[in-house]
Amino acid sequence: MKQAPIPVRNPRSGEYDYTFTPPTPQELRERCTALRTAQHLWNAEGVERRISALRRWKNLVQPGGSYYAEVLQAIIHDTGRKHESVLEVNLLASSIERWCGIAQEFFAQTEIKPSSVPFIQIHQHVQPFSLVGVISPWNFPLLLSIIDAIPALLAGCAVVVKPSEITPRFIEPLMHSVREVPELAAVLEYVAGAGETGAELLNNADVVCFTGSVATGRKVYHAAAERFIPVFLELGGKDAALVFEGADLDHATSALLWGSVVNAGQSCLSVERIYVEHSIFEPFTALLTRKAEALRLAYPTPESGEIGPIISERQTAIINDHLSDAFAKGAVLRTGSTACEQHGGGWWCRPTVLTNVNHSMKIMTEETFGPILPVMSFASREEALALANGTMFGLSGAVFAATWQEAETIARQMQCGAVSVNDAALTAIIHEGEKQSFKFSGIGGTRMGTAAIKRFMRQQALLVKTQHVTSPWWFSSQ
Amino acid sequence: MKQAPIPVRNPRSGEYDYTFTPPTPQELRERCTALRTAQHLWNAEGVERRISALRRWKNLVQPGGSYYAEVLQAIIHDTGRKHESVLEVNLLASSIERWCGIAQEFFAQTEIKPSSVPFIQIHQHVQPFSLVGVISPWNFPLLLSIIDAIPALLAGCAVVVKPSEITPRFIEPLMHSVREVPELAAVLEYVAGAGETGAELLNNADVVCFTGSVATGRKVYHAAAERFIPVFLELGGKDAALVFEGADLDHATSALLWGSVVNAGQSCLSVERIYVEHSIFEPFTALLTRKAEALRLAYPTPESGEIGPIISERQTAIINDHLSDAFAKGAVLRTGSTACEQHGGGWWCRPTVLTNVNHSMKIMTEETFGPILPVMSFASREEALALANGTMFGLSGAVFAATWQEAETIARQMQCGAVSVNDAALTAIIHEGEKQSFKFSGIGGTRMGTAAIKRFMRQQALLVKTQHVTSPWWFSSQ
Repeated sequence: MKQAPIPVRNPRSGEYDYTFTPPTPQELRERCTALRTAQHLWNAEGVERRISALRRWKNLVQPGGSYYAEVLQAIIHDTGRKHESVLEVNLLASSIERWCGIAQEFFAQTEIKPSSVPFIQIHQHVQPFSLVGVISPWNFPLLLSIIDAIPALLAGCAVVVKPSEITPRFIEPLMHSVREVPELAAVLEYVAGAGETGAELLNNADVVCFTGSVATGRKVYHAAAERFIPVFLELGGKDAALVFEGADLDHATSALLWGSVVNAGQSCLSVERIYVEHSIFEPFTALLTRKAEALRLAYPTPESGEIGPIISERQTAIINDHLSDAFAKGAVLRTGSTACEQHGGGWWCRPTVLTNVNHSMKIMTEETFGPILPVMSFASREEALALANGTMFGLSGAVFAATWQEAETIARQMQCGAVSVNDAALTAIIHEGEKQSFKFSGIGGTRMGTAAIKRFMRQQALLVKTQHVTSPWWFSSQ
Repeated sequence: MKQAPIPVRNPRSGEYDYTFTPPTPQELRERCTALRTAQHLWNAEGVERRISALRRWKNLVQPGGSYYAEVLQAIIHDTGRKHESVLEVNLLASSIERWCGIAQEFFAQTEIKPSSVPFIQIHQHVQPFSLVGVISPWNFPLLLSIIDAIPALLAGCAVVVKPSEITPRFIEPLMHSVREVPELAAVLEYVAGAGETGAELLNNADVVCFTGSVATGRKVYHAAAERFIPVFLELGGKDAALVFEGADLDHATSALLWGSVVNAGQSCLSVERIYVEHSIFEPFTALLTRKAEALRLAYPTPESGEIGPIISERQTAIINDHLSDAFAKGAVLRTGSTACEQHGGGWWCRPTVLTNVNHSMKIMTEETFGPILPVMSFASREEALALANGTMFGLSGAVFAATWQEAETIARQMQCGAVSVNDAALTAIIHEGEKQSFKFSGIGGTRMGTAAIKRFMRQQALLVKTQHVTSPWWFSSQ
């Protein structure tokens, strides 16, 4: 039986101008079986062959490559924004290249170690999982679909990716490019589908990687427990920024504005709360407001401004709820939107600076995922840390102070996986640090470095008796 | 309200000669709160202070130390066996020393790395979890209670251990020794309790480590998902050994016998299935049977023989069920017990060699946890691997062949975390290899090496802008 087609809304026009048909559970199962079969060869042929296949793919999708424009067009169509789409598609090729280097480093590691017993050697071996399932979100549809898939492929796994049903248009052109590299197409599949398809993928994968909301992430954790498979979750954030007296306010306001409004705030590493030392609160807020006011909506054309549409209509409701809750509790609008605005059928939100905010408001405690900058003052370092850490999330954060040394002292006490020190949202451009999500922001090892590849393998210790010696066991002579 | 006291059975006499009272949920919560408070200082004072505290504890519990005899006597009382109890208690001191060295290696790692952006450095930082909960089993009550606790303490965490209610007698003398080192006693607590106490510990810990059965392990995974905390599970095994033509049969039979019957088979790394190449099946089995026959029950005194009692009365029922199922399906007893035997109130099982076994029998597919050696023949390497891998478990295994190189080729295709190559059950004495459990044998990273310490921390990447440069962001000039 065929599945019903799913219509997809265009974030700029509000029209449902695309449809896709998800696979039936049986179709998905059969595809997974085929991928598992192909995985044996993919793994057996070694990492250099895998790197070679991925680099051939890279050539097709990099700027100037034969599929670049097609994929970029689809991502722009999916998300309604242009600047971030260019960055996102450009990152595909550079990510592939970076991971190829990390994989070479990983597989070059020494395999043979001595043990505490003279005639026994330890030979370290790795066995990749057969099939990795990736469930990825709509805010960076391409980037967050490859962030786990590429290291998993290099580890020697087959991979099925299920992107969000809100942004599925890039799947077709991307899979066209994948199919130009047949050995890669044998082990990498993108499937278009909604929650039901994601749940079915969980029934078929040996490991699951999920990027998305806390609510869905918790369900994925339960599903992984039920199937007794490993799970890697990267969920929401409510990233705090702390600005201390002595910080360079021009730099801090620019960096925090970028960190809050890039991709219209639809980024897990968005700055969502700003705490400013009392003595500099007013000059900071005035400057931030002035800079925020200067930004324009990217409407009517993607080139008209910096701020793209809200991609998911459901997110619009959340943003509006947080804003109205804040205003009802006394928040003051310094600039921006009092609620998401409809233009040309799409939903938009201006860079919005709020003051008179506090932790009784959703805007300070729940993930908003919009270009909102609520600014609150603090009187001491202890209060600043208590406010920053007073959250169920722990993804990332930022600290600005007179010197990076002073800022770093504070950063080390923030309960989150990455902190930009005298800058904001640097995890968007720095991919080398090892970091983990704190609290409800995630579960599992770092997505960076060789450890990220190791996640997709089981380590096997071969304890090798290399000499013929009489067994030392207590009853060996009997 | 007080909890009801729980009586504890003596495995040698069958008598209930010990009782303990588990903490109430509130008592446990209050103790956890106190441990969390103390953890701040334990972490802040640095690894050298932690090593110093652990080494002072080591001096008290090592052979000759003032608490050694008391702890050893309690473990013998708990388990009914002597030889393995001496090994187990001796391993406490050597484990502490080994982990102190690994912790020094871990904390000596370079913290500062360059990034891809010239003016941004990556400072790696770690933040330990506050409170680690360890739930440990009855087969090696001391050893398996410290295997996660010591690296967690060195990482900077506080730890609560709940050992099995079947073997709780060692807790009191062990805690006496811990209390001689006050800063350690502030962050390490053993609580006596059954499943209810374990469940309550899951409600209080920030990470959970569980060693035990698959059935309970699956419940622990669900509980961790519910609380959204990391989980490390090491569960059952059904370890296979493969013996190929050309192997040294004298050595192989001695090593496999030891691997099967040490601790009366009550060991997760026990060899539970032996597959022998057809051409050597009869000489192998005859020799194995002869050596098995020579072993004696450690009855009436612990010094009377090599094979101790079955510690858990519930396990006796499982062993009997597996044996009767095997005999009903045609298994042939070459030597040993047709069912567990009662002597002096305890339950005992002789080293038992079975032939005519196959995979329709529980003795070849489910964890038996007794000194049973079912031996089956194979005709080819492919068949051998299919039999060895035809299981829901994947803890460890063994391969014997003419050369270690030949054996290792096969070992690399076994789906389990550790393989002894031309030897058996080497994971009992080699602690340096990195290994993970496959399939239903476990979830989570390796328990060996620096990675084992890393499990108990969140890695934090501080992305530090070390120079004052103009922000490169696309609207920074506005």
